[in-house]
Amino acid sequence: MPTTACGRLPSRSASISASEPAVSPRPIDTPARTVVIEAIAPAVDAGRYPIKREVGAELEVTADIFKEGHDVLVAFLRYRRGDEPWRESPMRHVDNDRWAGTFSLPAPGRYVYTVEALAEPYRTWLADLQKREAGDEELASALGAGLALIRSAATRATDAADRGALAAHADRIGRAAGAEAVGLAGDVMLLELMARHIDRSEATWAERELEVVVDRERARFAAWYEMFPRSGAAADRSATFREAEKALERVAAMGFDVVYLPPIHPIGRAHRKGRNNALVAAPGDPGSPWAIGNAEGGFMAVHPDLGTLDDFDRFVAAAARLGLEVALDFAIQCSPDHPWVREHPEWFFHRPDGTIKYAENPPKKYQDIYPLNFQCADPRPLWDAMRRIVEFWIRHGVRTFRVDNPHTKPVKFWEWLIRSVQEAHPDAIFLAEAFTRPKMMRVLAKSGFTQSYTYFTWRNEKQELIDYLTEITTPPVAEYFRGNLWPNTPDILHETLQRGGRPAFKTRLMLAATLSSLYGIYSGYELCENVPREPGSEEYLNSEKYEYKVRDWDAPGNLVEYVTRLNRIRRENRALQEYRNLRFYLADDPHILFFGKMTPERDNLVFVAANIDPFATHAGLVDVPIAELGIDAQQTYRMHELVSDRWYDWRGPRGYVELDPAIEPAQIFVLQR
Amino acid sequence: MPTTACGRLPSRSASISASEPAVSPRPIDTPARTVVIEAIAPAVDAGRYPIKREVGAELEVTADIFKEGHDVLVAFLRYRRGDEPWRESPMRHVDNDRWAGTFSLPAPGRYVYTVEALAEPYRTWLADLQKREAGDEELASALGAGLALIRSAATRATDAADRGALAAHADRIGRAAGAEAVGLAGDVMLLELMARHIDRSEATWAERELEVVVDRERARFAAWYEMFPRSGAAADRSATFREAEKALERVAAMGFDVVYLPPIHPIGRAHRKGRNNALVAAPGDPGSPWAIGNAEGGFMAVHPDLGTLDDFDRFVAAAARLGLEVALDFAIQCSPDHPWVREHPEWFFHRPDGTIKYAENPPKKYQDIYPLNFQCADPRPLWDAMRRIVEFWIRHGVRTFRVDNPHTKPVKFWEWLIRSVQEAHPDAIFLAEAFTRPKMMRVLAKSGFTQSYTYFTWRNEKQELIDYLTEITTPPVAEYFRGNLWPNTPDILHETLQRGGRPAFKTRLMLAATLSSLYGIYSGYELCENVPREPGSEEYLNSEKYEYKVRDWDAPGNLVEYVTRLNRIRRENRALQEYRNLRFYLADDPHILFFGKMTPERDNLVFVAANIDPFATHAGLVDVPIAELGIDAQQTYRMHELVSDRWYDWRGPRGYVELDPAIEPAQIFVLQR
Repeated sequence: MPTTACGRLPSRSASISASEPAVSPRPIDTPARTVVIEAIAPAVDAGRYPIKREVGAELEVTADIFKEGHDVLVAFLRYRRGDEPWRESPMRHVDNDRWAGTFSLPAPGRYVYTVEALAEPYRTWLADLQKREAGDEELASALGAGLALIRSAATRATDAADRGALAAHADRIGRAAGAEAVGLAGDVMLLELMARHIDRSEATWAERELEVVVDRERARFAAWYEMFPRSGAAADRSATFREAEKALERVAAMGFDVVYLPPIHPIGRAHRKGRNNALVAAPGDPGSPWAIGNAEGGFMAVHPDLGTLDDFDRFVAAAARLGLEVALDFAIQCSPDHPWVREHPEWFFHRPDGTIKYAENPPKKYQDIYPLNFQCADPRPLWDAMRRIVEFWIRHGVRTFRVDNPHTKPVKFWEWLIRSVQEAHPDAIFLAEAFTRPKMMRVLAKSGFTQSYTYFTWRNEKQELIDYLTEITTPPVAEYFRGNLWPNTPDILHETLQRGGRPAFKTRLMLAATLSSLYGIYSGYELCENVPREPGSEEYLNSEKYEYKVRDWDAPGNLVEYVTRLNRIRRENRALQEYRNLRFYLADDPHILFFGKMTPERDNLVFVAANIDPFATHAGLVDVPIAELGIDAQQTYRMHELVSDRWYDWRGPRGYVELDPAIEPAQIFVLQR
Repeated sequence: MPTTACGRLPSRSASISASEPAVSPRPIDTPARTVVIEAIAPAVDAGRYPIKREVGAELEVTADIFKEGHDVLVAFLRYRRGDEPWRESPMRHVDNDRWAGTFSLPAPGRYVYTVEALAEPYRTWLADLQKREAGDEELASALGAGLALIRSAATRATDAADRGALAAHADRIGRAAGAEAVGLAGDVMLLELMARHIDRSEATWAERELEVVVDRERARFAAWYEMFPRSGAAADRSATFREAEKALERVAAMGFDVVYLPPIHPIGRAHRKGRNNALVAAPGDPGSPWAIGNAEGGFMAVHPDLGTLDDFDRFVAAAARLGLEVALDFAIQCSPDHPWVREHPEWFFHRPDGTIKYAENPPKKYQDIYPLNFQCADPRPLWDAMRRIVEFWIRHGVRTFRVDNPHTKPVKFWEWLIRSVQEAHPDAIFLAEAFTRPKMMRVLAKSGFTQSYTYFTWRNEKQELIDYLTEITTPPVAEYFRGNLWPNTPDILHETLQRGGRPAFKTRLMLAATLSSLYGIYSGYELCENVPREPGSEEYLNSEKYEYKVRDWDAPGNLVEYVTRLNRIRRENRALQEYRNLRFYLADDPHILFFGKMTPERDNLVFVAANIDPFATHAGLVDVPIAELGIDAQQTYRMHELVSDRWYDWRGPRGYVELDPAIEPAQIFVLQR
């Protein structure tokens, strides 16, 4: 037989004890706990993995909540940080059995959230009472039931004033009759008292608790700069950390937030690679920093040519004074000289004769590297050793780790490592350097990586940029994945840069710095270095991976000022500091990309027009979402172009842009209302 | 550093022991089990609820499966019925780390399925070996590693022939050198032997086991007929089951599969409702069958006016002989005279004075009904009593239950009840009579109901029919929800029928019988009974709920032949027996609905054109998906119209239909190639 939608508690329930500690443990399920609580969102894979947010955010949680019959429901968003007691905030009915509530995330760490809901007997009773007609034969009995509810609430009230007030309400209703009693039963003060002392003993909790990892803001908003600290002093010797401190000033002046160093550890001598990846190193060749360890130490040592651990500490402190954070490379592999080869042969791969195997991906051979074997007989000690390495560097002031090739180690290892490190150090940030198949990229982010390298480097056409950036900046992926966009790395010099030269360097920089709140460049980018090892290669000629570099940072045509300007624009425009607010808009020209980012309050409206063809001027109309912004089609609005610092008056939903790569291949506008 | 996609096991793995019992229990997780297994599909709410299928189906299961590094993987779909040992079938890589496998569902019951995957060391080794170049310094060592793998497989082989064959392969490879050895290592017979004796000891199992409820075919394909067995003898007395046996012949002759009876139990005398729901019954008024129980018994008794339990058994047997299944109403509520009121007062709702409350939905009162209180102090005995009732009727030959108002009882109760009944009786079918909010409708189906009533009755416009039927016949909803479409019930005489008369009755019947593989009518439909109790009401005038009816089944204008024809068409066309194959196609006229159903093999192609306006002829073009069917645009194809038994030659993707409600408001075509 048809029934109608049941009544719902109005927003008055918001008065219930928001954010007061609730120490009750999660109750045991019983047949009486019958509220259905489903589809809690946000969630990653139905709660299997945590979502990610940053400190200071408000998390809105929604859920389907309903129950058999016609009871009026109340629902609470339950949450706690780590092992702290449960807290709660009220949820409100939105529509169609969907409820919503919020809680704030004031500190980094892992929060758990879930939903508690129950029938509210007093409101249920009151709703019934108020529908009764005059002379209803059940009225007296119904009033009695309501009085019993009030008196029961009074027994639960620990506060004497509330207890007294409830008793007084009950007396008043008890003395009244008929319509007068019904009126008194609906008294607003009484409703608040009843809500405050509701009996939760048979409330239903959602079957699942969900997690949100709350990171510090740098997890979402940062400009990275990758540099080899050994470069810069001379072509034939390593710079020291003390010398590298000077480079920090240059990096800070350009406005970067994070300076990322390739491995700083002693480098193996056995099978050391020479310049341009030569099989045999010449005398004096420094070798690849990723061939980690020799007799002077391994993952917890500093290369003697760079200095001592104290010098490293000093370097970190110098960076901090400049507002820079030092990120280290965490590359899990050993040179044949690494102390572990002797101390822990059981952690490596072996030939049938018992000797240790070097890395191979036939026909490629990496004789200077021994991979670690996470499938060895007992991997736990290896896992623990990894954690000790990370914690060692945290003790030396490092909070950010760029993880080399995480997709060649077990995903469950990362899930364990990152969780266990962040339990003690919730400010630790891990960037996954995985360039592999899409599902592996995503599961690494789900499993804990704070940020991820992306396919951005290989996305150079208009539609593929739109598709890919939309995918990684919107749910479900953006609930756990923060893409850090790199136009170049020491391993990747894309053909677009090789061919497109300076205009391509500017456009790709603009795209990286504005499509995502996270981006980075590898040093030399600002000099438009674009010569590959050979045609068709993405490797640099004379790669810094195998030799010391000395560069002229003032070389003609450098982009230092352009980089500096973009980083300042990012700092001055909060819309560019958000990750999940990217929206693409129509641009008629197939070479022009037009997109925008806005703050939630819409007090900072940024639009970028970029010509992705470095060889020709393109011009055309672009769509500005003025209707969404409440700007009338006849109204003039000002567009402040920040690269040129020029002002334009636009009117209507379509603007005109003309982008000459020889002048400025990209423009960045702030819309002023 | 970028890596490339790793190799995948080709379909040869299909030769691995399909469907052989695998007795291994689910292994304990260890750090070495590192395969990622995600997104197993189909699944309802990530596996929280079972999916539904029917006996004889093949279930295709897909999953994302991948692992760190470059290993070649193998994967197995693991499944078992109830507590039987695990069985398995191989999975194949489809694309982009998506794998697929199938298993068959030969018997009703609950099957569990999950995925097991592991690196295949021999294939991984072979892939590496085959990429090595001539003169590779590691070749000898690599061959040694491969020989070790073969000899290790030989130790696992319990079959002496396999053991010997493996040893022979190893000897042959060991005696060969270089390229010859590589060639021998890839021998097809050897690969099969290695696959057969793969070491599973460190395989990864998916974190979750999923369930599929396998029902008998009636769960998906059935035509229901609802009738009051007490009607038909005379206006002033109840028919008996013996008399009602005659009605069975009429129902069977029309081609129905299930005959559903409203409650057959003793009816309460206290506050019995009179004709047309009058508050006071006149002498001789039989009362509503949903006011269950009196001194003569309750849920396990038969109304004495209908006969004895033996008579009921005989009725069930008579139905079975006619190919009809008897479905009972399971309505959990008592009349004030029900024995439980005395025996189990704790199962009811009480007034403050301790008396038992009747059902109310103020201002409506149902004095003839006492609801049961599932929130009573200890509901478990009540749950158990409910199960005993269902099992009682199962012992009397009933396998199908139409459950009255399930949304007013706890969802978790139904989940428990249906699961526990189906454990012993996997052929039990439960139809949920919930007409309530959409999420409750869906969660009842998720929680176990085999079939569900729907909003079909209230969906009478073209677009709302398309939207709603698409929603309930496609995933995710169709994974668990089987909509049983009823154009009328004793409670619902829709305005469309009241106003539209005979043409509306024909169209709504055609829609119900062809949009879903499950439909039903309440008796009187075939007589186009369409007089409401009063204007604006969906209740019947002189409702059979409160009185005995005697009808003239041969009355002029009856639809008996039409109903019979449609049921025969359903039986003769397998496409109409599937639930999830409904597709809507374009029809130019806003009053014409055009849709099709095909068998998976496309050997039965049914298309329906229905004019939903009972008052005027409509005509227009409809889109036939000839391209999808491989029919050339120039090619003529025959459309056999089954209501009129006429043949039409159509050509091209657009056909013309003209539907005069006074003649045939709907046509049903079988496309003949």
